[in-house]
Amino acid sequence: MQTLYVELGDRRYPLYIGPGLLGQSELLRPHIPGRQVLVVSNTTVAPLYLDRTRAALAGLRHEAVILPDGERYKTLDTLNEVFTALLNHRLDRNCTLIALGGGVIGDMTGFAAACYQRGVHFIQIPTTLLAQVDSSVGGKTAVNHPLGKNMIGAFYQPRCVLADTDTLTTLPDRELSAGLAEVIKYGLIRDLPFLEWLEANLEALLARDPAALSEAIERSCRNKAEIVVADERETGERALLNLGHTFGHAIETGVGYGEWLHGEAIAAGMIMAAELSARLGWLRKAQVERVRALLTRARLPVAPPPALTPDDFLRLMAVDKKVQDGRLRLILLRDLGRGVIADDMDIAPIRETIKATTRRS
Amino acid sequence: MQTLYVELGDRRYPLYIGPGLLGQSELLRPHIPGRQVLVVSNTTVAPLYLDRTRAALAGLRHEAVILPDGERYKTLDTLNEVFTALLNHRLDRNCTLIALGGGVIGDMTGFAAACYQRGVHFIQIPTTLLAQVDSSVGGKTAVNHPLGKNMIGAFYQPRCVLADTDTLTTLPDRELSAGLAEVIKYGLIRDLPFLEWLEANLEALLARDPAALSEAIERSCRNKAEIVVADERETGERALLNLGHTFGHAIETGVGYGEWLHGEAIAAGMIMAAELSARLGWLRKAQVERVRALLTRARLPVAPPPALTPDDFLRLMAVDKKVQDGRLRLILLRDLGRGVIADDMDIAPIRETIKATTRRS
Repeated sequence: MQTLYVELGDRRYPLYIGPGLLGQSELLRPHIPGRQVLVVSNTTVAPLYLDRTRAALAGLRHEAVILPDGERYKTLDTLNEVFTALLNHRLDRNCTLIALGGGVIGDMTGFAAACYQRGVHFIQIPTTLLAQVDSSVGGKTAVNHPLGKNMIGAFYQPRCVLADTDTLTTLPDRELSAGLAEVIKYGLIRDLPFLEWLEANLEALLARDPAALSEAIERSCRNKAEIVVADERETGERALLNLGHTFGHAIETGVGYGEWLHGEAIAAGMIMAAELSARLGWLRKAQVERVRALLTRARLPVAPPPALTPDDFLRLMAVDKKVQDGRLRLILLRDLGRGVIADDMDIAPIRETIKATTRRS
Repeated sequence: MQTLYVELGDRRYPLYIGPGLLGQSELLRPHIPGRQVLVVSNTTVAPLYLDRTRAALAGLRHEAVILPDGERYKTLDTLNEVFTALLNHRLDRNCTLIALGGGVIGDMTGFAAACYQRGVHFIQIPTTLLAQVDSSVGGKTAVNHPLGKNMIGAFYQPRCVLADTDTLTTLPDRELSAGLAEVIKYGLIRDLPFLEWLEANLEALLARDPAALSEAIERSCRNKAEIVVADERETGERALLNLGHTFGHAIETGVGYGEWLHGEAIAAGMIMAAELSARLGWLRKAQVERVRALLTRARLPVAPPPALTPDDFLRLMAVDKKVQDGRLRLILLRDLGRGVIADDMDIAPIRETIKATTRRS
C-alpha cells in the first residue's frame, strides 16, 4: 500500500492506494469521528463492493443508500434522496458519509456531506480509475443543472481516500482507458519522467497489474495534489488540469453527452492541443506523434468523431466570440511535460488546427 | 449610519446600519467585485424595495428573481429557481447575489451563493428586524427538508450587510415584536447594560424611531458578532444564542409551525428558561418578573399557548430520553446578562418549571 498526503493545512488528508484495501477496517476507522455512517453507492457498484465496505464498518451504525447509476442522475433531486436517507436514519451532524463508486457518486456524496447540517464528515472510496486519479484530489463536489454541468456544488475535502486497485478488476475496458487519458494528462502537463514511465508500463496497466496501477495512481494523485495545494480555489495553475478539456467538451457536447466517455473526449482534445502547440512552434511533430502513439496504445481515440465538422467545433467552442472578448483560454504544451495557460490566442492557428485534425479523422 | 465589522479574518465584513441606506449605491458598489448581480427577493418585499435596490446598481448588469413568500417555500425546489435564474441570465462565477428580504430570503440566497459554481459573492439586505439582528451575522444559510428544518445548508459569509431601518416602517407590528424578542435575548445572555437600555427605550423602538432602532440593531449585532467570531462553527459559546429555543421549538412544533412566529415562541421560551433558572436558585423571582415585564411591554407572549399541556412539552422536547442519554442541554441564566450552557440537568426542576409555567397560562 502507498500513502500520499494532500497537504491542505488543517484539512490535510491521506490517500491510501493499493490492492486489498476495501476490507481493511483499520484504514477507515481512524477517519470516522462519530459512530454513524451512511454509505452512498449506486446500482452497479453496490452489488460488487458494498458488503465488503460495510464489513469494515462493523461496530459502527452503518446504513446505505443506493442511487441509480449514471451522469443523468447527478441532480438536486437525486441529492435529495441522500438527505432523505440521512434524515430517515436520524443521522446527526457528527456522522460520516462514504462515497463508494465512480466520479458521479463521489461528486454527489461530497456535496451532500458539505450541505447536510452545514457539513458532516466525508470519506471517498473511488472505484473507477478516473475517480481515483481525478476526483479523489481537489475537493470539487457538485451536481448538474439542466442548464449546465457541475453548476451547483462546493469545495469540500474528504477525511481520507481509499483507492483499492482491486475495484478496477471489474471496470469495463473502455472505462479503464478513459481513466488512462487523465493519467497521461499529468505526464503531459508537468511530469516528463512519469510520461516516460507510462510509455514503459502501459501494457502492465492495461493488464491491470496491481503494482503498476498503484504506481500510476500514486504519481497522478501526487501531481494533482501539488497543483491543488498551490491553488485550492482554482484561480491559477489549476487550469493546467484542463489540458484537452476545451476541445474535449466541444466533442462531448457535439456528439451528445454519454456517447463518448469524458476520458475519450479528453484524449482527442489533448491531441488537438498538441497539434495546436506544434503549429505555434512549441512542440516538434515527433513529440505530437509520441503523444498520439501513447494514447493509441491506451486504446483511446486520437481524433475527434468524423461527424463533427470544423464549423461545429468553432461553434461549440464559441471561438469567434471568445477570441473577440479576449476570453479564449486554452491549455497548450510548451514541451512534453510542460503545460502552459494560453490567453490572447490568435484565431488563425486555432482554425487551422481544427481543420487539420478533423480532416484527419 | 453606524458601521460594525464582523471580524472573521479574510472574510471580515461590514454591517451598515441606519435609515436611508437602500438607495446609497456607494455603500454597495465596493462590495461587488464583478459586473453581474442577481437580486433575490419575494412577492411581499419586492414591490416595496426592489426598485430602490436596483437603482443603487445602475451601471452594473442587474437581474432579479422573485420567490414566493413564506417559510414553506424555503426548499431545495425554490432554491433551484434561483439557480435556473442564474443560468438563464448566464451569470458567471464572479457574480454577486443580493438577498433582499427577511430571514427566509437571506438563508436561501446565502445558500444559493455558497453553491452556485461552488461559491459566488453574497450581499445581504435584511428587511425585517429579526433578520437584521439575527441572520445578518453568523453566516448560517440553509433550506428546509420535509423531515427537518435547516437541515441542508452551509456556513457562508456575506461581503457586506446593509440594514436599512426604513424597511422596518412597513413591517407588521407582530413581526417587529418578534424581532424584539431576539434583541432582548442578547441583553439577557451577555449584556446587562443593553438590557437596561432596552428597558429605557422600548417605547421608542415600538414607535420605530430610527435612532433607537439603529442602536438596538447595532448592539444586538455587536453581541452576536463577538460570539460568532469566537465560535464560528458553533461548537461552544454560540449555543448561548439558543436561549429560549428548546422550549420555543417545542411551542412551534406543538402549535404547528407558522401559528406562532419564531420570536413569539422564543419569548415564551425565555420566560420558561428564566423560571427554571430561578427554580435552580440562579435568578431571583424579581429578576424573572423584570424579564416578563420587558417582554410584555414588547407585546410578546410570556407563557406558552394554553393548548399545550405539560405532557406535550415533555414529549416535544423528548426530555426523558434526552436526560437519560445525557443529551439535554438548556441555555439558562446565572444572572441577568449572564447566560450559561446547562448540561447534565436533573429532570425534576424541568418538569416542575414546565408544569408551573403552563399552568400559569
